[in-house]
Amino acid sequence: MQELIEAIEKLGSAAGSDVVKVDMFLNHRLDTTLLFKMGEELAGTFREEKPDLVLTVEASGIALALTTAHALGDIPVVFAKKSQTVVQSRDVIQASVYSFTHKCTNMIRVDRRYLPQGSRVLIVDDFLADGQAALGMMSLCTQAQCPVVGIGIGVEKGFQEGGKKLREAGMNLYSLAVVDRIEDGRIVLRREN
Amino acid sequence: MQELIEAIEKLGSAAGSDVVKVDMFLNHRLDTTLLFKMGEELAGTFREEKPDLVLTVEASGIALALTTAHALGDIPVVFAKKSQTVVQSRDVIQASVYSFTHKCTNMIRVDRRYLPQGSRVLIVDDFLADGQAALGMMSLCTQAQCPVVGIGIGVEKGFQEGGKKLREAGMNLYSLAVVDRIEDGRIVLRREN
Repeated sequence: MQELIEAIEKLGSAAGSDVVKVDMFLNHRLDTTLLFKMGEELAGTFREEKPDLVLTVEASGIALALTTAHALGDIPVVFAKKSQTVVQSRDVIQASVYSFTHKCTNMIRVDRRYLPQGSRVLIVDDFLADGQAALGMMSLCTQAQCPVVGIGIGVEKGFQEGGKKLREAGMNLYSLAVVDRIEDGRIVLRREN
Repeated sequence: MQELIEAIEKLGSAAGSDVVKVDMFLNHRLDTTLLFKMGEELAGTFREEKPDLVLTVEASGIALALTTAHALGDIPVVFAKKSQTVVQSRDVIQASVYSFTHKCTNMIRVDRRYLPQGSRVLIVDDFLADGQAALGMMSLCTQAQCPVVGIGIGVEKGFQEGGKKLREAGMNLYSLAVVDRIEDGRIVLRREN
């Protein structure tokens, strides 16, 4: 998606050999205009799959999930939670997710009522790296007996394994931008996406 | 705001004497249509204050912040973070916030670049209880030398101290719905809001 690619080239930065920083517009400060365009693009890609709801994981997936759900005709969003709150329901589905960014394992949890059996789920997240979050959300959907009709991603780190794993598993995965590699401290985007 | 009041009456529930659960439409599952209407209402309330950006705190404030920012003409959103990631900038502003829900103290952090000095900030959050999160965000703005032009809230728990404290401090606070009390396990909304 051209606007996202331009934002990454203009405002993104690399750290070390594998960290892609897009804090400025995607996951700390949000470029509202861009987020809505990204949501429209994901909605256009997955509209024919007729999703009933968008599933994401807190926190930075929420914005793109919401704009995608809006462009799909205001379908609901469900965001999996990482923390066990004192107001937790008793009927909770959970999956474990290792975060390479935070270097720890989180459980992600969804109240079962919000993934009604048979719902057609579109998974959306801002980032795809090793695919741990997406696999965790797929596990939640399997437990809830909900088909995953697609996975829509903002930025895929093409040099990590997530995209490959998900495509090989037959998932309908679409990423708005794919980082091919980090070269001399510079982000190189994949053009043939 | 009538649609929100109806959603709370229909889908909200109380736990104990002080927990208001709106998981079904506001902070776990998101009613996308309602979130956009809430954003329009907050935008209408604060438009004349000419905010430059919306500040919220992850995770459940993000959706309402984004729809408010959209209705204000797609101004940016900045969300304060609760966790120290490995990709943290060095120039970070922070404030401590006690969460009555999670029964712990969190630091909230914002990269100073995303609160440029002099920016007119509209603080938005899904909930207002004891006001700790709002006070933490106000502290971030003070440190960044940004005026807070208003505070827009989804659901205020009117029987806790946050609203009173902020209004007495002279803040321009508007809550879309105010829970007056929990009575016999039932949520009673304040009508004169």
